Amino acid sequence: MVIRGVAAIDHARDGDLAFIAQSAYDEWLEKTPASAVLVRKDSPRGRCPAIIRVENPYLAFVRIARERFGIGEPRAQGIHPQAYIHPDARLGKGVSVGPFSVIDAGAVIGDGTIIGAQAYVGERCEIGRRCQIGNRVVLEHDVVLGNEVIIQAGSVVGSDGFGYVRDGERYYKIPHVGRVVLEDRVEIGANCTIDRGTFGDTRIGAGAKLDNLIHVAHNVEIGENTVIAAQTGISGSTKIGKNVTIAGQVGFVGHITVGDGATFGAQAGVTKSVPANTIVSGYPAKPHAQAKREEAALRRAPDMLKRLRRLEKYLEARDPNFAKAFDEEASRKA
Amino acid sequence: MVIRGVAAIDHARDGDLAFIAQSAYDEWLEKTPASAVLVRKDSPRGRCPAIIRVENPYLAFVRIARERFGIGEPRAQGIHPQAYIHPDARLGKGVSVGPFSVIDAGAVIGDGTIIGAQAYVGERCEIGRRCQIGNRVVLEHDVVLGNEVIIQAGSVVGSDGFGYVRDGERYYKIPHVGRVVLEDRVEIGANCTIDRGTFGDTRIGAGAKLDNLIHVAHNVEIGENTVIAAQTGISGSTKIGKNVTIAGQVGFVGHITVGDGATFGAQAGVTKSVPANTIVSGYPAKPHAQAKREEAALRRAPDMLKRLRRLEKYLEARDPNFAKAFDEEASRKA
Amino acid sequence: MVIRGVAAIDHARDGDLAFIAQSAYDEWLEKTPASAVLVRKDSPRGRCPAIIRVENPYLAFVRIARERFGIGEPRAQGIHPQAYIHPDARLGKGVSVGPFSVIDAGAVIGDGTIIGAQAYVGERCEIGRRCQIGNRVVLEHDVVLGNEVIIQAGSVVGSDGFGYVRDGERYYKIPHVGRVVLEDRVEIGANCTIDRGTFGDTRIGAGAKLDNLIHVAHNVEIGENTVIAAQTGISGSTKIGKNVTIAGQVGFVGHITVGDGATFGAQAGVTKSVPANTIVSGYPAKPHAQAKREEAALRRAPDMLKRLRRLEKYLEARDPNFAKAFDEEASRKA
Repeated sequence: MVIRGVAAIDHARDGDLAFIAQSAYDEWLEKTPASAVLVRKDSPRGRCPAIIRVENPYLAFVRIARERFGIGEPRAQGIHPQAYIHPDARLGKGVSVGPFSVIDAGAVIGDGTIIGAQAYVGERCEIGRRCQIGNRVVLEHDVVLGNEVIIQAGSVVGSDGFGYVRDGERYYKIPHVGRVVLEDRVEIGANCTIDRGTFGDTRIGAGAKLDNLIHVAHNVEIGENTVIAAQTGISGSTKIGKNVTIAGQVGFVGHITVGDGATFGAQAGVTKSVPANTIVSGYPAKPHAQAKREEAALRRAPDMLKRLRRLEKYLEARDPNFAKAFDEEASRKA
Repeated sequence: MVIRGVAAIDHARDGDLAFIAQSAYDEWLEKTPASAVLVRKDSPRGRCPAIIRVENPYLAFVRIARERFGIGEPRAQGIHPQAYIHPDARLGKGVSVGPFSVIDAGAVIGDGTIIGAQAYVGERCEIGRRCQIGNRVVLEHDVVLGNEVIIQAGSVVGSDGFGYVRDGERYYKIPHVGRVVLEDRVEIGANCTIDRGTFGDTRIGAGAKLDNLIHVAHNVEIGENTVIAAQTGISGSTKIGKNVTIAGQVGFVGHITVGDGATFGAQAGVTKSVPANTIVSGYPAKPHAQAKREEAALRRAPDMLKRLRRLEKYLEARDPNFAKAFDEEASRKA
Repeated sequence: MVIRGVAAIDHARDGDLAFIAQSAYDEWLEKTPASAVLVRKDSPRGRCPAIIRVENPYLAFVRIARERFGIGEPRAQGIHPQAYIHPDARLGKGVSVGPFSVIDAGAVIGDGTIIGAQAYVGERCEIGRRCQIGNRVVLEHDVVLGNEVIIQAGSVVGSDGFGYVRDGERYYKIPHVGRVVLEDRVEIGANCTIDRGTFGDTRIGAGAKLDNLIHVAHNVEIGENTVIAAQTGISGSTKIGKNVTIAGQVGFVGHITVGDGATFGAQAGVTKSVPANTIVSGYPAKPHAQAKREEAALRRAPDMLKRLRRLEKYLEARDPNFAKAFDEEASRKA
């Protein structure tokens, strides 16, 4: 059998490899014209010529699509004649640089790294092997990237942090001499901003993934394999652990610590440190179960107010001194 | 009479056309030196030489300003010699491309479309007629635009979505082979990010308008004439209906559906599907009237707590077994 | 003694100037190899060869680092041969323009201003002296900058505001003919968007500082020395006073006024005008002390609900007509 391409199960044709990860799609095994389908170990039988049982069908599909068919892989295109490469920059083997990109003095770029169009790689940046620097990305000076780092279009890495010393009513900008370090396999979405450290570094650990429009302030540290959804902001010097999951539009104040494995609901406003392996949500962020209880109580608050008034009226009707009695007790206690 | 220009009523001079849409400005009809003023059908009389009564004075003014005086219209400037146009790209009649812009292989651009400076139009993009692609916009590969689409500076259309398959603690990037489709007259503000679909498309319907710094995730669908204010984020696969109005900083979780004509208050956190023509606000988003009632009750909550304590003390003072009595009842019920 | 460099107290070596601003670091005075340390007037003595007592050690350090050692100061590099300067642009003495930047027709740039790579300065922009326009910044046409303005990478200044006139279900774009004016010493972070005014101007007062990913809508006015943290959004025509402090992810509705010296907590949702010198937080934003009281009451709301039920059960158990009695009273009152 020859597999000529890959496709989603509901679009697959003869010659395609497809996958079924969720039982809701199992019925397709009976009707797909795909030549082969990757399925779960407990999937039912079907009519498809080749049914391949694996631990994680989606993972297997994605790896085959990428590694065998090159899907989603950028193509090396060499150095475009309209790129500007400073004579003091050093480029590894097989590096691509798109049109109107700038590689500035002292930058070092590892083998197989692909840099898109109109990107900027600042002075003394160190970029590892097989990275993908998207169109119009800016890496300011002294940014350090591990291997296989991906940065999508429009993101800015190494901007100066938001730090000022006050002088009366005026603010005086603090120079930022720290770096940004993105370790191996870090991925950054589009139009993010990641500020450099003041003296030390801003650091994102290996395998961490950031979505679009995320703000990471100066001196922030993010642990390995942490995942952060779009429009989240992390204030200065906050330390986020490993394997943390952060939903969209979350905000963290500065100078707090988040333990490994914590999880944050969307729009959470995190005002203090969070222990490992806890789930928090809401504003101010609190344990998720507590937040749900408070939300439920808030939904009943208008009703509670009515019932409270009813009790007061009932007692007032039966005891003309009800309000007075309370006042006396209050003054006795005081 | 010769009208030489257009101006706001409080800046207009002799020879100008102005407009008055709100009665608060009616007094200007007595004192403006403007030569002509567009007014509502029910506006009072005034001293201005030409008072033109129309259904919608602001709309009439805007159309005349744009169509007769070219105000707000970009000028065609041809292909700049320092743009890079791939030999396999096809450009229609009267297309402009600014300096340092890239039009990549296979891109097709319709007549009269104007592309600013430092913009990137990726491989196989299809752009309709009379579009305005701003400075430094990125359209990644296989983005499809209808006619008269406007995209402002810095926006990225067609970035890969935030999709990973987990492999133990590691995340493995899902390739994105879907497209982004922006239908006729869609307008996108500055520095937005619109991700392409995983297998299918991300799609924004005709006439929809998006403000700045908005995030639209993979496989999202937005209906016709929907309006979205700045810094809103829409998570993956969520479907927003037609004629929906969304205020600023709203967040939508993924995989939900919003009916036509719904309205969302600023900063709403939308955690589940919303029926057509409903107004929602708050976190988690709920019907607006309910949210207002809950806010009102919350404002009274500190007072409720005091009143509740007063009732308990009153009853305790009158029945030494008050607390005990309750406990007995509770155990009887259990 | 010769001072050869500057460093943080915990990294300083022989020949360095360091500083200690907080007493928590005073112990370093005993052990630092730094040659000189700037300290507070009330700092203890120590072993360091030169201990210099000043009012504000961090401010003194930052000024010396910047003014004597050039730390954080961009280097003038002249006009790059691959920049595009329109013949009708006018550049002052010592202006730098990086590769692939565009200076369009009629732009005027003051002495000593440094423009990075791939930046765009639109038609008729007026830029003062000693400004720093970062890599890939876009200044659309008719943007006016004072002296010593700093704009970081990726920000867009002068985009059209989000303004439409409705014509049935369709929206018709309002042309924006106003300007953006950034006064002296304004600083803007990375990937912000600042829209131009509709007829009048959008204006940011002298010395105001904006962090990353901030949205400023059309016709907004921001007062002098106001400080705004990342991802905040300000809707159209809102006026923010002087010396205001705004934390991250705050949202302001349009057409409101904020008095001088007000302070906003992170994620506040500001729905109405705020008097001078007040501290507000929460959604909808309210005086901070009230917000804290309401948060505290909300934490107790689940408990309040239980206690309310207990009271009702207690009274019901003692008076079979409890619920009825209330209903009768209610109908009597009605």
